[in-house]
Amino acid sequence: MVVSESALRDIPGLEGGVFPAQCPSRTLLDHVTSKWGVLVLLALGSETMRWSELRRCIEGISEKMLAQTLKTLEADGLVRRVAQPVVPPHVEYNLTEAGREVHGHLLPLMRWVGTNADRIISAR
Amino acid sequence: MVVSESALRDIPGLEGGVFPAQCPSRTLLDHVTSKWGVLVLLALGSETMRWSELRRCIEGISEKMLAQTLKTLEADGLVRRVAQPVVPPHVEYNLTEAGREVHGHLLPLMRWVGTNADRIISAR
Repeated sequence: MVVSESALRDIPGLEGGVFPAQCPSRTLLDHVTSKWGVLVLLALGSETMRWSELRRCIEGISEKMLAQTLKTLEADGLVRRVAQPVVPPHVEYNLTEAGREVHGHLLPLMRWVGTNADRIISAR
Repeated sequence: MVVSESALRDIPGLEGGVFPAQCPSRTLLDHVTSKWGVLVLLALGSETMRWSELRRCIEGISEKMLAQTLKTLEADGLVRRVAQPVVPPHVEYNLTEAGREVHGHLLPLMRWVGTNADRIISAR
């Protein structure tokens, strides 16, 4: 069956939105679905965390990638960096309201992955 | 606030599932949230497509990356490759039942991205 590409334009909320290469949607999509972006958003969904806690909890992330990922998500307004006015300095990270919305959309996907990964990967 | 990491284990369906580096969940998560994996799953969600249609519809994807992405998603059992017995050969791609499940979980996230990208990226 040869079908028309125009059907893609009919996906609600995606009319010309995600596919064009120069579109802001593509940039934001890259951020929230990046290898480490997903895991940081997921980790912060359950609680406020300090740098060292994030580092321990997301196994395998380097200091450089954690710093870069937090910076990107903070610039997108998805993650909030809170510096507590104490000595020694104490910095925490949590999700903004927009970050919570993304987290809410990521969670069902994560649950599906968690439920199906053993079966799928072992069958490869 | 210093909090316990153990709270992460309480995310339903994710008990020790997504974060450990050597876990199959991490591998599958990488596939379905990869830069091109997301767009291929999204494109095939609306219709069966031929290689050339996918290539045109996902702006910016190289032949190499499209081939690699389709191969990975096919090995995961998310995408089905259908070779029609005609001359000249005619190959189509569509989603399996599992692929449709992933697509269903990706769509709300894509809609959110499509709705919010302009505001978020222009505010950076």
